[in-house]
Amino acid sequence: MPAKYAVGIDLGGTNIKVALVTTVGEIVSKLSAPTGAERGPDAVMDDMARLAQEAIAGARASPTDVVGAGIGSPGPLTHREGMIYKAANLPGFVNVRLAAGIAQRTGLRAVLDNDANAAAFGEFWNGAGRGCRDMVMLTLGTGVGSGVIVDGALVRGHFDNAGELGHMIVQPGGRLCGCGQHGCLEQYASSAGVGRRVADEVRAGASSSLEPMVRAGAVIGGSEVAAAAKSGDPLALRIWDEACYYLAIGCVNIQHAFNPAKVVLAGGMSKAGAFLVEAVKKHYMALRWKLLDDIPEIAIAELGNDAGVVGAAGIAWECERRGLWRNW
Amino acid sequence: MPAKYAVGIDLGGTNIKVALVTTVGEIVSKLSAPTGAERGPDAVMDDMARLAQEAIAGARASPTDVVGAGIGSPGPLTHREGMIYKAANLPGFVNVRLAAGIAQRTGLRAVLDNDANAAAFGEFWNGAGRGCRDMVMLTLGTGVGSGVIVDGALVRGHFDNAGELGHMIVQPGGRLCGCGQHGCLEQYASSAGVGRRVADEVRAGASSSLEPMVRAGAVIGGSEVAAAAKSGDPLALRIWDEACYYLAIGCVNIQHAFNPAKVVLAGGMSKAGAFLVEAVKKHYMALRWKLLDDIPEIAIAELGNDAGVVGAAGIAWECERRGLWRNW
Repeated sequence: MPAKYAVGIDLGGTNIKVALVTTVGEIVSKLSAPTGAERGPDAVMDDMARLAQEAIAGARASPTDVVGAGIGSPGPLTHREGMIYKAANLPGFVNVRLAAGIAQRTGLRAVLDNDANAAAFGEFWNGAGRGCRDMVMLTLGTGVGSGVIVDGALVRGHFDNAGELGHMIVQPGGRLCGCGQHGCLEQYASSAGVGRRVADEVRAGASSSLEPMVRAGAVIGGSEVAAAAKSGDPLALRIWDEACYYLAIGCVNIQHAFNPAKVVLAGGMSKAGAFLVEAVKKHYMALRWKLLDDIPEIAIAELGNDAGVVGAAGIAWECERRGLWRNW
Repeated sequence: MPAKYAVGIDLGGTNIKVALVTTVGEIVSKLSAPTGAERGPDAVMDDMARLAQEAIAGARASPTDVVGAGIGSPGPLTHREGMIYKAANLPGFVNVRLAAGIAQRTGLRAVLDNDANAAAFGEFWNGAGRGCRDMVMLTLGTGVGSGVIVDGALVRGHFDNAGELGHMIVQPGGRLCGCGQHGCLEQYASSAGVGRRVADEVRAGASSSLEPMVRAGAVIGGSEVAAAAKSGDPLALRIWDEACYYLAIGCVNIQHAFNPAKVVLAGGMSKAGAFLVEAVKKHYMALRWKLLDDIPEIAIAELGNDAGVVGAAGIAWECERRGLWRNW
């Protein structure tokens, strides 16, 4: 009997999420537990493996019903070698062979990819990108993560690090990014970046309805800025509009690089829904070229927090379909 | 007996070039003739077909030795439909079904792609990109053309128009491009763009050794600017350096989008060789992120004017290998 399920594992700094997913991207069982990264990689991998086994048992399935496990993890990492180089959110995880660790603990074949690729693949497979062959996802959260699908396959590149579109330079000589570059998209359009910009301007003397939060030292993100912008706060409106302007520059560059059918927006900023999409589209239509109408649809992600586990399982199914499993 | 050759056709505004190319990208016969686009698409396609037949005969081969014909043409065009929408350099070519036209005239299977994709595929297959799986080529000529190879295959995108990296916005609100956008890479780094910038500044009062050429109304391109820069002309040095700066911004964005092993530079500007590459690298190393050493090699193209015919033939071989031939 052909396998019916793939395991999808989403390893995050806060939680491990695991799901059992069908051939068509539907979740049949789902579990999560705190990551507790401070316990070290072995303890975390033990928990990941245990959750995978529980997810299988929870669906009254057996390991022979399972094609393998896909794992999405923070990076930088190497998909080819199934190894995390290092991860800001997982202190102490240095050169951890995660795919091998899970394969050995579960007896399942395993494949590792970065979390942004896994989430993008989830939306592509069974979310906002359903029916596309070419799609780009931007996750506007703490940073700007991204994943790119070209002709139905994730783009990984020579160094396994393609689709880092949050570090596209959209403003030469612009704001300094943690990566060492200036003017990265994520400085202007991440949820955290937008919040920081408001806080910086308030501290520099600008007035805003968000001033009490800034003075109180509260963390401001895209949701707070969107809410203030919607109620007419001029500073929040300006910063929100600027984020949408730079996202539109990013969309023009994505159009000319990958020519996708859709650009899908996810993460904290995307909770603003049409308030985000309409503003990005307005700038995009003004900025774009007039030679051809190769206009990608700009849409909000659909899978929310499930994108990572669904996409990781989808990557496992892809390994099966294309014969790409590796023995670790 | 398996076929031994593919025909590569490079349709340009000035000349039609045709070559017979082996399975490993070597040219066994080569011909060219003036395009004479003003005679209309049928006459041009008649000549293309005749040159293809002569190239086959010139190698003492027969049509049964030939796997098919690849055609590179100016666009915009649709690879999927084998049709030129319209081409600035081929007046009167509107919605011309070039692949079908060549297939009918020669009895060969035929595939159409844009000239920048064909040239990039040529360098990838048997030029500067030999041995890579992931490569980007930028052709710095009248404009900036580009072609992208991901995991061994050309990236075409949903609208068949991926890899238009000359229209990446590298300077928001920057110089107006013929495409309707502001700040496109090709305004700063094409051979013609660099020449125009020097001429504009001379006319605005800047002094330069190129002033007599500008006053005489001569067309200045990358070669003239490079020569003046090498001999210490301050204006030429500044404009050349700025071109290399924006090319480096482009390389950073290409790195994060595609993560290629190599970025290959071709076209008029690339004749400056190391003078170009070293300046681009200097800026690139200063601009790039410091998180990972996923640094693409920046190299000069190797095939010169043969890239187009070799690449077009390579695309025909790809159709064979991947079973992608279409009956028109």
